[in-house]
Amino acid sequence: MALLSKRSAFIYNPILEEDDDAARLERRGIKVTKLNRGDPAYYFPTPKYMIDAYVDALRSGKTYYSDSIGVRELRDAVADRYGRMYRINASPDDVIATAGISEGLAFLNSALIDNGDRAVIFKPYYVQYVSNLMAYGGRPLFGIYDENEGWSIHLDHIRGELRKMKRAGRIGRVKYMLITNPNNPTGTVLKRKVLEEVVDIANENGIVLVSDEIYDEIVYNGAKFTSVGQVAKGTPHIILHGASKVFDATGFRMGYMVFPEQDGKSKAIRDKIVDYARMRLSLNTPAEYALAEGISNRKEHDKAIRGMVSHIEKRVNRVTDILEHNDAVSVVRPNGAFYVLPRLKMSKLRIKDDGDLIKRVLQQEHIQITRGSGFGSPGHFRIVALAPEGELEEAVGRIEALLTRYMR
Amino acid sequence: MALLSKRSAFIYNPILEEDDDAARLERRGIKVTKLNRGDPAYYFPTPKYMIDAYVDALRSGKTYYSDSIGVRELRDAVADRYGRMYRINASPDDVIATAGISEGLAFLNSALIDNGDRAVIFKPYYVQYVSNLMAYGGRPLFGIYDENEGWSIHLDHIRGELRKMKRAGRIGRVKYMLITNPNNPTGTVLKRKVLEEVVDIANENGIVLVSDEIYDEIVYNGAKFTSVGQVAKGTPHIILHGASKVFDATGFRMGYMVFPEQDGKSKAIRDKIVDYARMRLSLNTPAEYALAEGISNRKEHDKAIRGMVSHIEKRVNRVTDILEHNDAVSVVRPNGAFYVLPRLKMSKLRIKDDGDLIKRVLQQEHIQITRGSGFGSPGHFRIVALAPEGELEEAVGRIEALLTRYMR
Repeated sequence: MALLSKRSAFIYNPILEEDDDAARLERRGIKVTKLNRGDPAYYFPTPKYMIDAYVDALRSGKTYYSDSIGVRELRDAVADRYGRMYRINASPDDVIATAGISEGLAFLNSALIDNGDRAVIFKPYYVQYVSNLMAYGGRPLFGIYDENEGWSIHLDHIRGELRKMKRAGRIGRVKYMLITNPNNPTGTVLKRKVLEEVVDIANENGIVLVSDEIYDEIVYNGAKFTSVGQVAKGTPHIILHGASKVFDATGFRMGYMVFPEQDGKSKAIRDKIVDYARMRLSLNTPAEYALAEGISNRKEHDKAIRGMVSHIEKRVNRVTDILEHNDAVSVVRPNGAFYVLPRLKMSKLRIKDDGDLIKRVLQQEHIQITRGSGFGSPGHFRIVALAPEGELEEAVGRIEALLTRYMR
Repeated sequence: MALLSKRSAFIYNPILEEDDDAARLERRGIKVTKLNRGDPAYYFPTPKYMIDAYVDALRSGKTYYSDSIGVRELRDAVADRYGRMYRINASPDDVIATAGISEGLAFLNSALIDNGDRAVIFKPYYVQYVSNLMAYGGRPLFGIYDENEGWSIHLDHIRGELRKMKRAGRIGRVKYMLITNPNNPTGTVLKRKVLEEVVDIANENGIVLVSDEIYDEIVYNGAKFTSVGQVAKGTPHIILHGASKVFDATGFRMGYMVFPEQDGKSKAIRDKIVDYARMRLSLNTPAEYALAEGISNRKEHDKAIRGMVSHIEKRVNRVTDILEHNDAVSVVRPNGAFYVLPRLKMSKLRIKDDGDLIKRVLQQEHIQITRGSGFGSPGHFRIVALAPEGELEEAVGRIEALLTRYMR
């Protein structure tokens, strides 16, 4: 009898897979530049007005269990955010606070997925979408973010995949379709008309749409962000968001799910996820108040997000500029989030694969990046463009030089 | 095709099941006395020295992702705690911080349980033990906390159950045995010699022992607490603990798992749970520093815990005293945690069952308690003895009077 469960084989985070090797270098006194963790709060201090609200909550004794789905102040602030920013009509009862989007995904899969059920996940994907789905017995039905189309959704491909499921009489087992907008790891913002097509596809197939919009305010290079909630009225859908990126507070571990629709499916899922939330009783209570203030204090938030996004835009563009000049890679210029996912032209390089590349980058240049195969996208690598400009430019310059050294 | 997963049927928290009805009463201006949530921080302010440490962490910018298994300061403090209090030899690498024991249980079940696997859970149980196990496809193999033996473990019974599993060639599917000491919902501290027998049983059957010791310093009425780690040297075992109860900080949502043993099983489980922790990246970082200080500052902690336990002792004894005088119930006097689980003598009462009782208590007396059947113990009810003495005495007096009204 095996000790570990079968699902445990899927639990593995490629973003952190070099942490032990990096720590070994650091113990030898070598500085490792970490371009692998999408952690803005490591580089940009969490805004003071949110810290002040957090401290107020702590000093006023708010350290007991909160309502399992989040304190009313937070759910009010979230409902208001969606009405104000996207004209999405959600009440505080349509909001469930979660310990990051991680917990939201776990609730979703636990609530919906039986053994053999499917969920549409587009490649390249954020790691956890697949591993968490598989941990609950599900299997991804892969769609494609098409690099040749600026990483937009390959609509014909997913239509075809779903048609096959329909013909096989298995479309009812496709429990949800998950998109990420803006995207991690590609850094792409989806166009409104693409989203409209995605909504049509969800409708035609009776599939609940889930949109991870954690980077919704981190948009630049002239792109315009559209929330799924703006184009999916009448279609069952769930929006995932939280404090980590836009509110620059990864260490709060605070997220939320928004259920804007009142149809039977949306309500059944929402009600069951309330039960899941009640099982673990509470979140970190003072952090809920801090995020409530983070959202409600629009003046302070606008100032903070504007400053951060202008830095991110410069950094992402600088990384893209440097790599664009190298013949061994091609890069789609991002317009959202803070990731760059260059493609390796393998025929021009004397390296085995993307895993081989990131090992060499760590050992020779002491820079930690992530292999594209970790996101279901072999032959790519992901750079997090958050480090201060000088440091980032220097590090990416060295990656570029390494690629040149390995050219055929 | 059903929308919700089969496992979702098990996800339900009886402790909060009357929350909606209670809220309805409150909206009518009626005050509801809540004796259902085991939340010390609601009644006893979290110690100031921990709040100060929390604020320091926030003010010094520690709001980024932490090491997935917890910051070194916290893991150092935990390892030191176990060495100092119980002479358990654990290194900081043997400690994994979790978002409460809830997350620790989820990691454990996800890592160990395949469909049809079993875990030994003793009745009455803390709700989540069973629902979380079943959410991962497992089934409880029930043992018994024997009310006639002061809620101690019925050793012969569990020996018999495991013997049956062995004969059926299925003992390898029993993945772990979980005990709670001090116990929720019974309020019992297990004796050292009982623990020694439990360790023997685990050894004889090759089962990993898991001990939820979240209440380990909340012990009174002359009882002495023994950690499993003191008697299980050489036996694979895992200890669950955290900030919520002993450190009076439920709203931090901070727990940890300790793996004191270095055998192959213990290490394989630990390593896989590190992978699970890495999937969700981080905990609430500043709360980790606050708990590290909570544990390390022994002088402040000793003062805080002594004060809190002396109040709890009085409150638990007062509840027991009041109910003892009623002929329709019998009560085992607790000596740990802060719960009282009286038994209803159903033949003497004109009520249908424990669920019926708690509904009447809420509607007639506006007091929220929990039905024993929610803990696998029908014919009982659970009172949380944390409210201030006057309020608690008055409320329990009214429960006692209600029982008298319903006597045959």
